[in-house]
Amino acid sequence: MTKIALQQDRKLDAIVLGRAGVDLYARESNTDMADISGFNKFVGGSAANIAVAVSKLGGKVGFIGCVADDAFGGYVKQYMSGQGINLDGMMTDNSGSRTSVAFTEMKPSDCTVLIYRNKASDLTIKPEQVDPAYIASSKVLVVTGTALSESPSREATLIAMEHARRSNTLVVLDVDYRPYSWRTDVDASIYYGIAAGLSDIVIGNREEFDMMETVLAPGNKDDDATAERFLRANTQVVVIKAGEFGSKVYCRDGHKFQQGIFRVEVQKPFGSGDSFAGGLIWTLVNGGELEDGVKHGSAAAAINVSGNSCTEAMPTKEQLFDFIETREQSL
Amino acid sequence: MTKIALQQDRKLDAIVLGRAGVDLYARESNTDMADISGFNKFVGGSAANIAVAVSKLGGKVGFIGCVADDAFGGYVKQYMSGQGINLDGMMTDNSGSRTSVAFTEMKPSDCTVLIYRNKASDLTIKPEQVDPAYIASSKVLVVTGTALSESPSREATLIAMEHARRSNTLVVLDVDYRPYSWRTDVDASIYYGIAAGLSDIVIGNREEFDMMETVLAPGNKDDDATAERFLRANTQVVVIKAGEFGSKVYCRDGHKFQQGIFRVEVQKPFGSGDSFAGGLIWTLVNGGELEDGVKHGSAAAAINVSGNSCTEAMPTKEQLFDFIETREQSL
Amino acid sequence: MTKIALQQDRKLDAIVLGRAGVDLYARESNTDMADISGFNKFVGGSAANIAVAVSKLGGKVGFIGCVADDAFGGYVKQYMSGQGINLDGMMTDNSGSRTSVAFTEMKPSDCTVLIYRNKASDLTIKPEQVDPAYIASSKVLVVTGTALSESPSREATLIAMEHARRSNTLVVLDVDYRPYSWRTDVDASIYYGIAAGLSDIVIGNREEFDMMETVLAPGNKDDDATAERFLRANTQVVVIKAGEFGSKVYCRDGHKFQQGIFRVEVQKPFGSGDSFAGGLIWTLVNGGELEDGVKHGSAAAAINVSGNSCTEAMPTKEQLFDFIETREQSL
Amino acid sequence: MTKIALQQDRKLDAIVLGRAGVDLYARESNTDMADISGFNKFVGGSAANIAVAVSKLGGKVGFIGCVADDAFGGYVKQYMSGQGINLDGMMTDNSGSRTSVAFTEMKPSDCTVLIYRNKASDLTIKPEQVDPAYIASSKVLVVTGTALSESPSREATLIAMEHARRSNTLVVLDVDYRPYSWRTDVDASIYYGIAAGLSDIVIGNREEFDMMETVLAPGNKDDDATAERFLRANTQVVVIKAGEFGSKVYCRDGHKFQQGIFRVEVQKPFGSGDSFAGGLIWTLVNGGELEDGVKHGSAAAAINVSGNSCTEAMPTKEQLFDFIETREQSL
Repeated sequence: MTKIALQQDRKLDAIVLGRAGVDLYARESNTDMADISGFNKFVGGSAANIAVAVSKLGGKVGFIGCVADDAFGGYVKQYMSGQGINLDGMMTDNSGSRTSVAFTEMKPSDCTVLIYRNKASDLTIKPEQVDPAYIASSKVLVVTGTALSESPSREATLIAMEHARRSNTLVVLDVDYRPYSWRTDVDASIYYGIAAGLSDIVIGNREEFDMMETVLAPGNKDDDATAERFLRANTQVVVIKAGEFGSKVYCRDGHKFQQGIFRVEVQKPFGSGDSFAGGLIWTLVNGGELEDGVKHGSAAAAINVSGNSCTEAMPTKEQLFDFIETREQSL
Repeated sequence: MTKIALQQDRKLDAIVLGRAGVDLYARESNTDMADISGFNKFVGGSAANIAVAVSKLGGKVGFIGCVADDAFGGYVKQYMSGQGINLDGMMTDNSGSRTSVAFTEMKPSDCTVLIYRNKASDLTIKPEQVDPAYIASSKVLVVTGTALSESPSREATLIAMEHARRSNTLVVLDVDYRPYSWRTDVDASIYYGIAAGLSDIVIGNREEFDMMETVLAPGNKDDDATAERFLRANTQVVVIKAGEFGSKVYCRDGHKFQQGIFRVEVQKPFGSGDSFAGGLIWTLVNGGELEDGVKHGSAAAAINVSGNSCTEAMPTKEQLFDFIETREQSL
Repeated sequence: MTKIALQQDRKLDAIVLGRAGVDLYARESNTDMADISGFNKFVGGSAANIAVAVSKLGGKVGFIGCVADDAFGGYVKQYMSGQGINLDGMMTDNSGSRTSVAFTEMKPSDCTVLIYRNKASDLTIKPEQVDPAYIASSKVLVVTGTALSESPSREATLIAMEHARRSNTLVVLDVDYRPYSWRTDVDASIYYGIAAGLSDIVIGNREEFDMMETVLAPGNKDDDATAERFLRANTQVVVIKAGEFGSKVYCRDGHKFQQGIFRVEVQKPFGSGDSFAGGLIWTLVNGGELEDGVKHGSAAAAINVSGNSCTEAMPTKEQLFDFIETREQSL
Repeated sequence: MTKIALQQDRKLDAIVLGRAGVDLYARESNTDMADISGFNKFVGGSAANIAVAVSKLGGKVGFIGCVADDAFGGYVKQYMSGQGINLDGMMTDNSGSRTSVAFTEMKPSDCTVLIYRNKASDLTIKPEQVDPAYIASSKVLVVTGTALSESPSREATLIAMEHARRSNTLVVLDVDYRPYSWRTDVDASIYYGIAAGLSDIVIGNREEFDMMETVLAPGNKDDDATAERFLRANTQVVVIKAGEFGSKVYCRDGHKFQQGIFRVEVQKPFGSGDSFAGGLIWTLVNGGELEDGVKHGSAAAAINVSGNSCTEAMPTKEQLFDFIETREQSL
């Protein structure tokens, strides 16, 4: 079993950096976008989802990001505050940007998602708005990779990671790759490569590692080779997720293990990765072992995709443990 | 009584040029944006509203505009086609623009409206995409002024108006001024001034004429002076709307008249101007008199604001006449 | 003979609006850009050239434009002031724009010209920087068409023309078309069409009128038809220049005449149009006849292209009359 | 004495990455910009200067950069080819960018330099245009830092450095910091920090290291502390230049030394740093010791600033050794 060393005397368990926005889920399931009558409204965005996941499990969570100075920005902040998330690092932009909005059909697969991110507020955060003392007040900094896709958010993210390294705050990179946010895979691979080198733990799926290997090892599909390539610089742990085949976890000391998934009836494909990251991080900040963290992450992901939103369907600690117990008894 | 001369042998009654997008109306009335549970989905946008208004009254309507090559663009086109609107002039953009979306609370006044128009698809239409033969196939071209706010849509609009003048298609300008779309009022007044000079009929409210007089007559509040100033070049009729005080109508030949409003219980403040334009234009293309057109427009506006969407609440001819008859009997 | 009515009681004879920049002429003649050893430095730019032309002939000239807040901007202003040009309408921009620079080989034909106009200062002038009282203080406003090519200079130009119309300042449009400044010929033709309608006199060559007829009469090469098309709205005179075949001049009242060129040994192809405009305008503001103005313009053009810069080679009144006398005696 | 290990079996001695452009030097010395009569024309730009410096000393040099597809781009390429520089990595852009141009007065100090870099061609080079095999064919890759200031050149530079690391090509970073090229010092410090970590040798002056310490150690002026901070990751040597006080050189193994300057009559302040880098790199690729390299660099700098251009005033090997011999005999 593997323990991840963490600074214990910190006010916050985790600060998540990245996108908080509005998710609008189709009111009717299995219905095309043109035919649905309307949308249910939730807070979403990869970073917000992870923050809510850790918070609902009982963690003390902070946030670094930016929303627009408008009704949706206000809604996002009100909801996150209500979830007990500290928003000292949440900026507000009034330069004409808009809080990110995602419209989604509700289908188990082939689900149309329409993203409104032209001049997205989250990408307007500037490096000079990132407070090193805030980062030093947390055990973990979780970076979601979309924050790297555009300046000045790119520079804000890189400097936040540098601050974290200097203050011994553990850095977790959730790759969270959205091809439409980048000029080319080559550009993406350059910045993800820099960010991975600054991270203690890197979490991504096979397609995301393919992008990160665009230049280094084009065409490679061998997880072992990938893990070896990324267990360099500061990186201690690499987690490669493979959807229904579960996850492979590689440690710098050579230890490796796998974790299967918990099968459920899927309502929608999104939220899975964010719940996984949330379950894993919550376990680590509470001194749990990496193996348990990955199991908790897998269970949280299963619970989330069987619900009908991302943030609202994140489990509490009790729900998580009940779910695992029930499943393991049934084996 | 005043008749407006129109080319009669045309395939279409009216072509509307401008914005077609998605309106998302709060599910709960009198509730703040942060607290509503979701949105009902409709097609909207000033030009789409006018097109639907004329079509539901029985007119043959075409459209010049642009939506994104995505699920919302598809939805807008499917809905408008379903309303019998000819979409030969509707373009599809796949350069990363997004179909305009408006989120609104449902309150009779002080109603928050949140607009997503960063890189809006409607403003990507290019002058070379405007077909003079299409415009020559219609009795009327209706231009909504927001189409003038940005290039290349600005140039597409100006050239469409030039084509209309050359083919004796009557030009109606609905001012539809959105200050956030413009760098300054001075810029807006320049292009609205050019567009007004190319129009047979100009329709706006007092605030919109104030903007158009930013340079010509700053501070003027005298409707008579305004009308005199705008009854120049090609302009035959000026309609100045004054909300609950009704409308004043001025003709080039010196004739002028007023029309009061029909009082109703207001559900939401939007849609009123678009229904007014629709009722007026439908009357004119059917050979009706200007005075009747303005009355029909006022009635259509009253019906619309007492409903709970813009496009869906447009009346049919029967609903319009029943409404007027009921109201006039009750006097 | 034709007289152009002008307001006489004005402080300035002409205000020129448009581009003032730096011209760098190859030190060696008939040498390729790569092989020349350096450049001679002059003030240039279409509008500056016209302003200097009128001023050297003895006219009282003002200027509306913008240069960068740097050493080249300072040089341009110092030179123009030294030429007696009033710079009350000359703005200075410090937003990162650069004063326009043109590098040229010195060859009678096939002469490479390299233009540095990315973020050009002249195109940063804003409509709110144009003072109507300044325009009202001049007999003539001369607009060079490149000022229409980009916002906010486009709006500044259109509003200056509106101000001129309202203060009975005669408006002359020198088409000055540079295709690289425009997205398409269609766009150019839209704004040139609007500007021509606001002008009393329109001066261009055949290629420039072709562009202006892109939509109206594509392919037309008939000068008479062109002139008829443009003698509308406010336009009283149309001048169509045909290089070595001289100029054709058309008046609203049906009068038309031609003017041949004065043959000289050409040093460089540029400056010709600007000297022509300068000679013509100077004649008109002094109460001269249109026919004489066109002759003076042709002579000034001949003198200019036989010199080795644009601004410095503009003739004085004495040089102009000597030149014409010498040429006419030799016939 | 210190030797720097290099791959010996390489076709090229050094590839320089960055800006090649046109330098226009005032014809008259000690004269203000407004009053000079013209400019002498040379090839310039930091990277081009270094490439010419190494080439004139006898090195085999390649280049990675981009110029415009126009007469100045052609001139730059013709000159560099004529200097024996391999241009396999030189791209040509035709998207409307312009080859960088610098206009300078000729004064020993307080010398106005006017830079035309709006949409500069050198900053349009893309990561996918950088060939790893080309970099692997050289002993050294020299990166000039201005190439980091904007995308996509920033990504091209970072990937070139990664390619160099993988092919054991020695990486030299010449900081070459131009504040006007960057949004803030903080942004600059982030990318320079990443680039420094990828470099074997980092060369800058005190002001440049101040910028690189903006976040890490604001206000620090202690060269020893700076050197310690930057001798990390891949960096083996740090050179801190202090103008007339000469240079301090720090090695990873703790060795450090100083080199004074050679006093000359200064004609112009620029070119000094580029000649220094050229002299140093030429020495290293020929197996010379670091101490000799720094002496050769200092001598080359002195020779250059006493001349009247950057590229043309670079010394040959004979000139360099004669100069040093003469100076050392005179001590």
